[in-house]
Amino acid sequence: MIQTPYLLFLGDAPDQLSAKVAQGIKDWRPENAVGQLRMEGCKADVGLRDMTLAHAKAAGAKTLVIGVANRGGYISQAWKSVLIEAMGMGYDLASGLHNLLSEEEDLVEVAAEKGRILHDVRIPSVEYPIASGVKRTGKRVLAVGTDCSVGKMYTALALDSAMRARGMKSTFRATGQTGILITGNGVPLDAVVADFMAGSVEYLTPDNDPDHWDVIEGQGSLHHISYSGVTLALIHGGQPDALIICHEPTRKHMRGLPDYKVPTIEAIRDVSLSLARVANSACEVVGIAVNTQHMSEDEAKTYLASVEVEMGLPTVDPFRYGAERLAEALEKL
Amino acid sequence: MIQTPYLLFLGDAPDQLSAKVAQGIKDWRPENAVGQLRMEGCKADVGLRDMTLAHAKAAGAKTLVIGVANRGGYISQAWKSVLIEAMGMGYDLASGLHNLLSEEEDLVEVAAEKGRILHDVRIPSVEYPIASGVKRTGKRVLAVGTDCSVGKMYTALALDSAMRARGMKSTFRATGQTGILITGNGVPLDAVVADFMAGSVEYLTPDNDPDHWDVIEGQGSLHHISYSGVTLALIHGGQPDALIICHEPTRKHMRGLPDYKVPTIEAIRDVSLSLARVANSACEVVGIAVNTQHMSEDEAKTYLASVEVEMGLPTVDPFRYGAERLAEALEKL
Repeated sequence: MIQTPYLLFLGDAPDQLSAKVAQGIKDWRPENAVGQLRMEGCKADVGLRDMTLAHAKAAGAKTLVIGVANRGGYISQAWKSVLIEAMGMGYDLASGLHNLLSEEEDLVEVAAEKGRILHDVRIPSVEYPIASGVKRTGKRVLAVGTDCSVGKMYTALALDSAMRARGMKSTFRATGQTGILITGNGVPLDAVVADFMAGSVEYLTPDNDPDHWDVIEGQGSLHHISYSGVTLALIHGGQPDALIICHEPTRKHMRGLPDYKVPTIEAIRDVSLSLARVANSACEVVGIAVNTQHMSEDEAKTYLASVEVEMGLPTVDPFRYGAERLAEALEKL
Repeated sequence: MIQTPYLLFLGDAPDQLSAKVAQGIKDWRPENAVGQLRMEGCKADVGLRDMTLAHAKAAGAKTLVIGVANRGGYISQAWKSVLIEAMGMGYDLASGLHNLLSEEEDLVEVAAEKGRILHDVRIPSVEYPIASGVKRTGKRVLAVGTDCSVGKMYTALALDSAMRARGMKSTFRATGQTGILITGNGVPLDAVVADFMAGSVEYLTPDNDPDHWDVIEGQGSLHHISYSGVTLALIHGGQPDALIICHEPTRKHMRGLPDYKVPTIEAIRDVSLSLARVANSACEVVGIAVNTQHMSEDEAKTYLASVEVEMGLPTVDPFRYGAERLAEALEKL
């Protein structure tokens, strides 16, 4: 659990896109961030107040979150003086970069001396159990995709937000680095050891109130041969009551796999549901989230309407048009 | 790669069953073992010549393999003097126990001093790639199960043996600790980090002669919620041309999961084939291996015959009646 609120460190971000972790926090959990810290030459701005370390500290910030990714995902030497100064002032550090805070000797030394915590959310900090499959109380919805990077995290965050706006009890459950930094906790599923994957998802989504929903961030796809095992561990560890299928209709092939075609929504529905029902016989597919970013307004609307008719399920682009209809579908379930 | 031949260390094994790793080596790769080393009070005997360290060394042994599991799977203090003496004489050590050789300070120290290797086959020693899904040359067959521990390793070893007896080119590819010790190499799949599971299976089963078969040891089951992700990584990383379904018909529920029923052979056929064809559209189910150990001779024969008719596929118990018909089915493919 990372202490909030954060100060978001944008460093010397070369462009806006490189600050997408900070942008995600600002968009989805603005209450988790008091401001942004930008170094000279920083080309990103997530629209929060610019603050110094001292200023943000006075405003209550507890953790300096590295909200920027270099090309290569490493911890830049240019950042070091700021990171070290922050720890001296009482900040913990948090990062989702490949290269770990805990592998930087100077940072480790200062953290030990000052009693600060280095959170590397890319690697697990918990010894997860082996999944027991015991039925848990409360309800769970999982985003499954026809491919990787089709908007599963975005869909889950938008759905969680729409559910809470309706007064439903909902918690977004992060399973990837960005999601973990946004909410302050979660499971970095792609870095969990094989035998404990499903158990880590059970750990992430424990017993809860009967009318509470865990909105579980999906990973990979059952048809993405590099990561399908991770996806199945989510389906079986999450024992979802409901699935949302996420799709990006303009993709020419599976992400990173030029020889692999993107499956149809129907194919993913059938295989996901058949496997989900092993863990929860009542599981249903309740809606479809389409990422229409590469379509015109007209194309998007026509496509959404046609999928809705074909599949007989509420079909939305949660980014473009909101996730309310998906929340409504869950409420009715 | 563990150097062969081995001397099999049975230590102070409390009973025959505790020496099942040594028994597996003796049964499947007798050419890999020059003899067995038993301490006073040892209650196991795998039927090899009893040898001292010096005797086995003279006979060419290169590695002392811990072929016994204590209750709890730890490295007994009682064994230490033998293990240390062995390294002094030039033996490497190999173990599949939970508790690692490399975590025993005294063993690590002696190994460093004598230049010996400590092989802990329970953990990966390779940095595996992420799976690319690129089609590889050669052929692959994978054992998939309706449950865990239904005889997938045994089936794969028996099949490999039957194929070689027919003059087919075949290599057993181990994906678990026992299999790795039997053959001297493989991937400890349950200990691989999630993102690299399918890649580790690609690494294990590289390009080969067009008429060569990799016989891949299966793990878990697509319907075993604790380990299903591992199973799917095998199906997608292995890109099998053929599947053998393994089943144990007397089991009351899934292993370790009292609330979960064992799926039918048909259910596993359908979901396995549908997912396997994502990676290899030509994949076929070619046979069924039934573990009839808890059935009488009559029951077994009746059951095998009825499954054979129902499924329209060669159905055998490879332990009781041999795997020749499965090898024949592959040869025809």
